[in-house]
Amino acid sequence: KSVGKAISAKDPILIQNLAKDQVRAGASVLDVNAGPYSADPKGDMRWLVDTIRRAVKVPLSLDSTRIDVIEGAIASAGDRVVINSTSADEDKMDPVFAMAKKYKAQVIGIAMDKTGVPNSKDARIEHAARIVSKAMDYGISPEDLYLDPVAMPVNVAQAQGMQVMDAIRDFKMLCNPSPNIVIGLSNVSQGTKSYRGLINRTFLAMAMANGLNAAILNPLDTELMDAMITTELILNKNIYCDSFLEAYRKE
Amino acid sequence: KSVGKAISAKDPILIQNLAKDQVRAGASVLDVNAGPYSADPKGDMRWLVDTIRRAVKVPLSLDSTRIDVIEGAIASAGDRVVINSTSADEDKMDPVFAMAKKYKAQVIGIAMDKTGVPNSKDARIEHAARIVSKAMDYGISPEDLYLDPVAMPVNVAQAQGMQVMDAIRDFKMLCNPSPNIVIGLSNVSQGTKSYRGLINRTFLAMAMANGLNAAILNPLDTELMDAMITTELILNKNIYCDSFLEAYRKE
Repeated sequence: KSVGKAISAKDPILIQNLAKDQVRAGASVLDVNAGPYSADPKGDMRWLVDTIRRAVKVPLSLDSTRIDVIEGAIASAGDRVVINSTSADEDKMDPVFAMAKKYKAQVIGIAMDKTGVPNSKDARIEHAARIVSKAMDYGISPEDLYLDPVAMPVNVAQAQGMQVMDAIRDFKMLCNPSPNIVIGLSNVSQGTKSYRGLINRTFLAMAMANGLNAAILNPLDTELMDAMITTELILNKNIYCDSFLEAYRKE
Repeated sequence: KSVGKAISAKDPILIQNLAKDQVRAGASVLDVNAGPYSADPKGDMRWLVDTIRRAVKVPLSLDSTRIDVIEGAIASAGDRVVINSTSADEDKMDPVFAMAKKYKAQVIGIAMDKTGVPNSKDARIEHAARIVSKAMDYGISPEDLYLDPVAMPVNVAQAQGMQVMDAIRDFKMLCNPSPNIVIGLSNVSQGTKSYRGLINRTFLAMAMANGLNAAILNPLDTELMDAMITTELILNKNIYCDSFLEAYRKE
């Protein structure tokens, strides 16, 4: 809410402090979204990108359902920008991958299409395979592709959790080198009354154990970051030391 | 330490209260071990089994490296007793599976042998396959077999974490129906200075996401049990409700 107000008021301080806090907490990419109530998404996205770029140097992920909103900000968003996102729909993929090629951008591809949200592992793989194939057509390397298997809220689609875990595994085998796999983590606990943090961090550890290597999450959630760092430790991605949480945060 | 003292003093109260607390916290089997410093392991195991059986009704796991210690207590240990454990050594497996057959007991088979602890997924599978094959020879059903892939301390064998995760997946495919997979959870954080609980519960969620369906753990560690219950929720093994932690504990 305070972010929404700062955007309307074009007040850079809160935005820039939040960006700095998130980078300090370990974010390697910042997701930039003008919010669902923006009266001028294109102008707001552009202003957000300029404002954040003055505060921090990490890559930005331009998060909008509208291609023109992303295209309006991408030239000023810096290196290694991420386009968030395309679905598996042809009329969405073509302009997104063309833009990605032009600006050397990375792309988040969400394993769903106009017909709706996938309700099985196989449906997810069908969508993902179409996205990978289209990325190839445009000469986008799998390493610049983030596939999103669409994690669903545990309170309305509980059986989808395992479908997502299995999809993560299978997505890794769609091409060589493997694409990156990303999820929007807070989705899994959307609408649950208690224990949102516990659900989020448990799901994250489980998904990482299956091959997830990126997530859109709140890096200011300390317990979540503790779980993420510990999962990476067990996956042997960071070297153990007695104070491994502090060591990670000092990096 | 207090358990060791209670065993030496043959004081049933502490032992029985601990057993009741563990069952109340969700333990479905109690691991019974006379401890490394017992002067009379056989007598102590027998006394422990009799003492615990008077307090609770859950199955017991008789945990000793000595077969005579287990054999001395198994007849009075009640139904569905678990023999903890055999290695993949022939001279260990034969008497253990013969005993299991005689007493209709379940068996924990540890994927290692006299040559030492396995240092790869493949070594684990070799040992596990030998145990499964021997169990078949004795007519022990895979459902009565718990294979242990030997989880190692993250501070001395960090690369083994992923080997264990992969081994869990492959163990499930050794026979049909799949064997159960168990780990000694506290091993993974043995000797670490900080964050033992965090390492334990993160490892547990990751291993369960790979197919682990049993663990020797401390059910009185509330955060660990919270993580376990939440992992089962995401695996769709318990039905979601807003107070799913409380609901699980009331069962």
